[in-house]
Amino acid sequence: MSSSSAFDPQVAVQLLRELRELTADSHGAQRVAFTEVWRRARSWFEGKLVGLPVEFHRDAAGNDWVTLQGASDKVLILGSHLDSVPNGGWLDGALGVLAGLAILSYFAKQALPPPVTLRLVDWADEEGARFGRSLFGSSAFAGTYSIDADRSRTDRNAISLESALRENGIEIDQIGDAAIERANACAYLELHIEQGPVLEKLGLSLGAVTGTKGVERHAIVFQGQEAHSGSTPMGMRRDALAAAAKLALEIRSIAIKHPDAVCTIGSLKTFPGIVTAVVGRAEATLDQRDLDAHVLEQMYREARDASERFAAEEGCSVEWSRIWNIEPVPFHPHLIELCEESIRETVGRSHRLPSGPLHDAAEVARLGIPTTMMFVQSLGGISHNRIEDTRETDLLLAVRAFYSLVEKTMGWIVSQPD
Amino acid sequence: MSSSSAFDPQVAVQLLRELRELTADSHGAQRVAFTEVWRRARSWFEGKLVGLPVEFHRDAAGNDWVTLQGASDKVLILGSHLDSVPNGGWLDGALGVLAGLAILSYFAKQALPPPVTLRLVDWADEEGARFGRSLFGSSAFAGTYSIDADRSRTDRNAISLESALRENGIEIDQIGDAAIERANACAYLELHIEQGPVLEKLGLSLGAVTGTKGVERHAIVFQGQEAHSGSTPMGMRRDALAAAAKLALEIRSIAIKHPDAVCTIGSLKTFPGIVTAVVGRAEATLDQRDLDAHVLEQMYREARDASERFAAEEGCSVEWSRIWNIEPVPFHPHLIELCEESIRETVGRSHRLPSGPLHDAAEVARLGIPTTMMFVQSLGGISHNRIEDTRETDLLLAVRAFYSLVEKTMGWIVSQPD
Repeated sequence: MSSSSAFDPQVAVQLLRELRELTADSHGAQRVAFTEVWRRARSWFEGKLVGLPVEFHRDAAGNDWVTLQGASDKVLILGSHLDSVPNGGWLDGALGVLAGLAILSYFAKQALPPPVTLRLVDWADEEGARFGRSLFGSSAFAGTYSIDADRSRTDRNAISLESALRENGIEIDQIGDAAIERANACAYLELHIEQGPVLEKLGLSLGAVTGTKGVERHAIVFQGQEAHSGSTPMGMRRDALAAAAKLALEIRSIAIKHPDAVCTIGSLKTFPGIVTAVVGRAEATLDQRDLDAHVLEQMYREARDASERFAAEEGCSVEWSRIWNIEPVPFHPHLIELCEESIRETVGRSHRLPSGPLHDAAEVARLGIPTTMMFVQSLGGISHNRIEDTRETDLLLAVRAFYSLVEKTMGWIVSQPD
Repeated sequence: MSSSSAFDPQVAVQLLRELRELTADSHGAQRVAFTEVWRRARSWFEGKLVGLPVEFHRDAAGNDWVTLQGASDKVLILGSHLDSVPNGGWLDGALGVLAGLAILSYFAKQALPPPVTLRLVDWADEEGARFGRSLFGSSAFAGTYSIDADRSRTDRNAISLESALRENGIEIDQIGDAAIERANACAYLELHIEQGPVLEKLGLSLGAVTGTKGVERHAIVFQGQEAHSGSTPMGMRRDALAAAAKLALEIRSIAIKHPDAVCTIGSLKTFPGIVTAVVGRAEATLDQRDLDAHVLEQMYREARDASERFAAEEGCSVEWSRIWNIEPVPFHPHLIELCEESIRETVGRSHRLPSGPLHDAAEVARLGIPTTMMFVQSLGGISHNRIEDTRETDLLLAVRAFYSLVEKTMGWIVSQPD
């Protein structure tokens, strides 16, 4: 195996720039999964493999796999996603795939094979931007998909997920066959932008990710009584907005009791929603996240109790319905340590942080495959926006540290008993 | 002049039922101004005049006038509006017009003319439901219209108010000519449903209206920072919804310091308004009303100061823009007294209350024409809805008391020096 000094992280940054040129317009990246621009990105990616001693194929769920056979059949998977949200950033997902491509290409060009088999995966539809189903490809790999629910999904133009999949060569009934790709997987690593402000605030370039937070996501409807804003005395109102406003403030008190917890009301809709009527119905969404399942359960219970108290105070009723939830997924302790080591060796200081956003890595980790992620600082903590950015110096440090983590992880895999 | 004992209030209720039959569907009344159903209602109304010794014409702003010449040229105007909101109630507006029609018809059938000239007006587009311009016809009468602002108004289908007016025989540049109808006007009376819960709560059928509250109506935009709900720690957020929620609660404290004041946030919109993002922008509407101009000014100032304080606390900015305002319009003290007398004589007890909703009567009163209104109890305080209703016994009492008020007001007009 070659020494890491010869690895050039600039290769990955150059690939990112090429991809941006190919798939972004003035509004940002347009690599929405199952669209033409996404297919263009993937063709370009496949073209980068020409002349390398690697095997390429697309699995039953549309994930693209590149395999470089190593001295051992044991597999280290590197992965992320080329798809983006509409008007997205140039790094979200693409960084992990193209850092992986730079690393895999580097190993492929060495005289000797790597100690373990190295695989790179571009997961299909991480974002779920078009059909509202995120982690599509990785959940098929992990066996957590639900074909019945997915079959009924449609986009804004009433095109079904099923037909969009077929247009992309994927049969919805077959996606579970992606499980075959798990064979011999011994570890999974993913490099990603943080998409939050923590590293920037701490003045750090890189962080080791301890896991992905569990999420409780609910729709909450307060029902009061629509009434004329001019003729209804303050004391005779059943104002659904007042109940919702109290909850919007209370969820912050609920969250700040726990160091890493977050609670967010991201959408609040008022009905009839006109200037001359007391709000009769307020519809809110609540998103709660923590790495500790007990904390998550406690926060959910507290928010629910508070909403019932506020509804009673305002003469309203309240109903909750779960939109979606996922348990916290802690990453592998030893891989987190290796990640910290790589970061410290590259930039001097490291920091552990949980991921609030979900990632394909969570699906892989839930399956029991040792997993961790590395985060690189996001400027302003902004993502899902064309202004998403990371300093080039930080990108180069990230790719270099991630390369180091790959080396360390290969060593760890080799050291494990069969 | 005939005695009031011969007047039958049941006539008005019968007319209301006929109109409902003609212009409501299963969703409620559909007499939106400048539409086919509204024209149908007005044709039906005109048909009811056949055989009566009255003059009928439509003025330059589309208001329909029925005139019964009296012994004196001095004019008492009775009025309200046949137009409704979409899916509206059967009584809002129609009660006043059809009670007026029953009373005018009664006087028209007497052997002797009434002591003063009696006019009934059906104001055009009180509700402003289609073009967002309420009190259209009465503001033309009162000279408070603004043709330039009105010319740019369009409905949901991008049809301009100007072309809708033309379709209804009204030239927008001529609407000010409706001022000619003011000639000899000595008083204006309007019977209306309360559209609020006050009379019901007090167990009263009828109330004398002291004036219409002034209104300050503003759009308030809090600008924070959109951020990922999973990756943005609670302490690093600039949550525009939090600032707006504080204001939604604070306006209640501002209002309850004054007995008749109301403050309402009727619409709150969140952007981007998705479950996974901290709210970056919150757009609220605020409607504040009181009969005292000083109270109104104080409430506006307090809400504005509070919004700036909350914005600062949440790291947001806030901008206010006035949507619309109108000063408080107190009604005529002696007519309010006559109204109370009529109510007491009819039902034993009376109550004075300001009107929170605006009415055409406010436009007339601003002009200096002595004005008052009578309110009849609304069940549940509900209006602008197909379930809007009033007990039939209360409707009959209302029409009877209003007839009495007409008699008293004619007597008062006659008693006034020329």
